[in-house]
Amino acid sequence: MPTIIVEGPEISVDKKRELARKLTDIAVEIYGIKHIVVLIKENDPANVAVDGELIADKKKM
Amino acid sequence: MPTIIVEGPEISVDKKRELARKLTDIAVEIYGIKHIVVLIKENDPANVAVDGELIADKKKM
Amino acid sequence: MPTIIVEGPEISVDKKRELARKLTDIAVEIYGIKHIVVLIKENDPANVAVDGELIADKKKM
Amino acid sequence: MPTIIVEGPEISVDKKRELARKLTDIAVEIYGIKHIVVLIKENDPANVAVDGELIADKKKM
Amino acid sequence: MPTIIVEGPEISVDKKRELARKLTDIAVEIYGIKHIVVLIKENDPANVAVDGELIADKKKM
Amino acid sequence: MPTIIVEGPEISVDKKRELARKLTDIAVEIYGIKHIVVLIKENDPANVAVDGELIADKKKM
Repeated sequence: MPTIIVEGPEISVDKKRELARKLTDIAVEIYGIKHIVVLIKENDPANVAVDGELIADKKKM
Repeated sequence: MPTIIVEGPEISVDKKRELARKLTDIAVEIYGIKHIVVLIKENDPANVAVDGELIADKKKM
Repeated sequence: MPTIIVEGPEISVDKKRELARKLTDIAVEIYGIKHIVVLIKENDPANVAVDGELIADKKKM
Repeated sequence: MPTIIVEGPEISVDKKRELARKLTDIAVEIYGIKHIVVLIKENDPANVAVDGELIADKKKM
Repeated sequence: MPTIIVEGPEISVDKKRELARKLTDIAVEIYGIKHIVVLIKENDPANVAVDGELIADKKKM
Repeated sequence: MPTIIVEGPEISVDKKRELARKLTDIAVEIYGIKHIVVLIKENDPANVAVDGELIADKKKM
């Protein structure tokens, strides 16, 4: 049973619903397996850094 | 040092204590290594989807 | 930068290419962020269990 | 659907089978959910370090 | 693009900033790739166990 | 016990040794906890995509 873990920022429940459905459709198509689990992880901008700088700090600029 | 990550719904501290102890006992037995780390991850029903549908939506039905 | 980790069985490079492109397109659309990382993890059927039974054993039946 | 990811060293298929079954039984009991996925990740001793030293180097001593 | 995921206890934003910058510097040096993502995961002491005992319980002693 | 998971390309054992030691030193300094686990995950260029394109395909250009 393929599992898709998405690490991103906070999003609305409507976006989560759409994200989960669309990612699942693609996984079903590619793997040919219909049972798919999607885990959406929401990260605070202070907990993610790109190129050594926290997203929370980039936003202040 | 084996590490066990459990992705599940919210549970009580009593259940976490029991889960950690029992998972550790099994890992010690199978791996023959006594130092085990357990990370319990609690996921909101709006952040998990099975077969393309959020758990939060399934519960409404 | 959202990161998508996919835990599934082995697939061909053509399927990986298609999977990565399609998952990225959806993440860009939902998050409104264009830089997306996709990590495809391929798991041996002896290393995955559903409902307590290894996929490798289910296939033998 | 709870998912259990186990990061450990290489083990035999017999041990994987036993590990998956026992971890699943505990998760079913604690969560009261019968569908459980177990992912067993096998790590080379050169890819794991405890207290700053690779397991591969500890073994040489 | 290497990704570093850190599972630890809660820390201040100042410590997160320092952690992200220093981990990134090392990854850039070792991999020779300048784009690095760092994800800092903060875990409640009731959600982490070492040797079968929750960190939350160890602290009470 | 903080755990650091590094998802990157293949590297030599010498680089793994250096990476593990340096990441551990930083984690000890930031968290004030001396027991640290580092897991180094090596990914094939066909299993990682940035901006929707496999690293394996980018290299061909």
